[in-house]
Amino acid sequence: MNHSSNEPQREPIEPIRYLSKADAAAIETELLKDYRFGQQQLIEIWGHACAIAIAKAFPLGSLSKKQPTVLVVCGPEQNGSIGLVCARHLRIFEYEPTIFYPKRSSHSLHQDFTVQCEKMDIPFLSYLPTEVQLINDAYNLVIDAMLGPETDHTDVREPYAGILVTLKQIKIPIASVDVPSGWDADEANTDGISPEVLISLTAPKKCAASFPGKHYLAGRFLPYDIQKKYELNLPEYPGTDCLIEL
Amino acid sequence: MNHSSNEPQREPIEPIRYLSKADAAAIETELLKDYRFGQQQLIEIWGHACAIAIAKAFPLGSLSKKQPTVLVVCGPEQNGSIGLVCARHLRIFEYEPTIFYPKRSSHSLHQDFTVQCEKMDIPFLSYLPTEVQLINDAYNLVIDAMLGPETDHTDVREPYAGILVTLKQIKIPIASVDVPSGWDADEANTDGISPEVLISLTAPKKCAASFPGKHYLAGRFLPYDIQKKYELNLPEYPGTDCLIEL
Repeated sequence: MNHSSNEPQREPIEPIRYLSKADAAAIETELLKDYRFGQQQLIEIWGHACAIAIAKAFPLGSLSKKQPTVLVVCGPEQNGSIGLVCARHLRIFEYEPTIFYPKRSSHSLHQDFTVQCEKMDIPFLSYLPTEVQLINDAYNLVIDAMLGPETDHTDVREPYAGILVTLKQIKIPIASVDVPSGWDADEANTDGISPEVLISLTAPKKCAASFPGKHYLAGRFLPYDIQKKYELNLPEYPGTDCLIEL
Repeated sequence: MNHSSNEPQREPIEPIRYLSKADAAAIETELLKDYRFGQQQLIEIWGHACAIAIAKAFPLGSLSKKQPTVLVVCGPEQNGSIGLVCARHLRIFEYEPTIFYPKRSSHSLHQDFTVQCEKMDIPFLSYLPTEVQLINDAYNLVIDAMLGPETDHTDVREPYAGILVTLKQIKIPIASVDVPSGWDADEANTDGISPEVLISLTAPKKCAASFPGKHYLAGRFLPYDIQKKYELNLPEYPGTDCLIEL
């Protein structure tokens, strides 16, 4: 290091960067193509970190229902698989997850994650009750692993549009994975669902900049060169923790 | 549950089971074939848990050398890839791993894990110094991710036979992954290398039953049905921890 004086150098503490959809996609492409990370590997890392975030935000002992039930709503793409991995780890942490996965992916990668849950006897719902009181009564919280940053929020189709209507009405807390379903990843949202907890993966997206609830950053594995290249200014994770509250 | 009386039932606490090579292989086959776990996924889970075990056994603040250097010796098969993943997470935990990986696997799965380390600027040694003092001086510890339970311990070939001779002579601690290199997984060992730390993956192997050092069980993901079927009697992991000291 070339210091121009003998003064101690102070690292200016730059604020964390909130990523645009385009930057988030560019980072993921770089991880997969240049760094040769595998999708299976990343989904496992992210899903595991989400389960730890849920256990931190909603500890077993704090749940209001007698059974530690959790409803995990999984979408058709990568976010859905992250939800499946999250559900599997929650089961290992002694929660009782139930999965609602209305349109299953035909990719074998996603199917493998589904089988892992089925073989662990995690129940799958065949439909979501439209009577919201049934959901409020049955579960302690809902994990929203439905639509990711890649979804066009102006054109949410069925069955997801209907599920969003239901999620807007429920009274139990929602924890969203990466980007709340139905939100535009690039903008603050005012009329969508209102999660109490947001689990940003790798780096927060622009829509999270003014998020009023509990906000975790999860998935600690990003190579230092990528952190620098995209000027992420990630906070320092404590010890060996894979998540941090922002 | 059918209880024959109203007496409170006490779960008898059965001792943890030490697996034979054959049972360990059968469990892995079941995970891959029936549960559809992916090798990439399992290697990531195990390697991450190993890095956390190392950080627990050798915290950054406790290291005797000025730099938090760690030498990771990786074998040609799955254990070697677990070592690569462990090295990558140790780098994220702010250790300074160096990898010695004398015979690289030609499988693209293992190559991907190698590229991930190379792209994170983790140095690879081209040879292991035969002068053990050089190793003692340069590193705080050695992680032995060389030979796994699948290796015939009566027929260890070069370069691994030579590396074992070196590892027997070094004075810095060794932490072995799953089964210490050169040991028979089915038997207690008396004349092989003497690791200070053993990180058993998923369930301990027979050779670990009388292990005198620090012994961790790492990799918490095993479906309950498999735990029951093989009568593993795994201890209860605390909270969301992925490892436990036995």
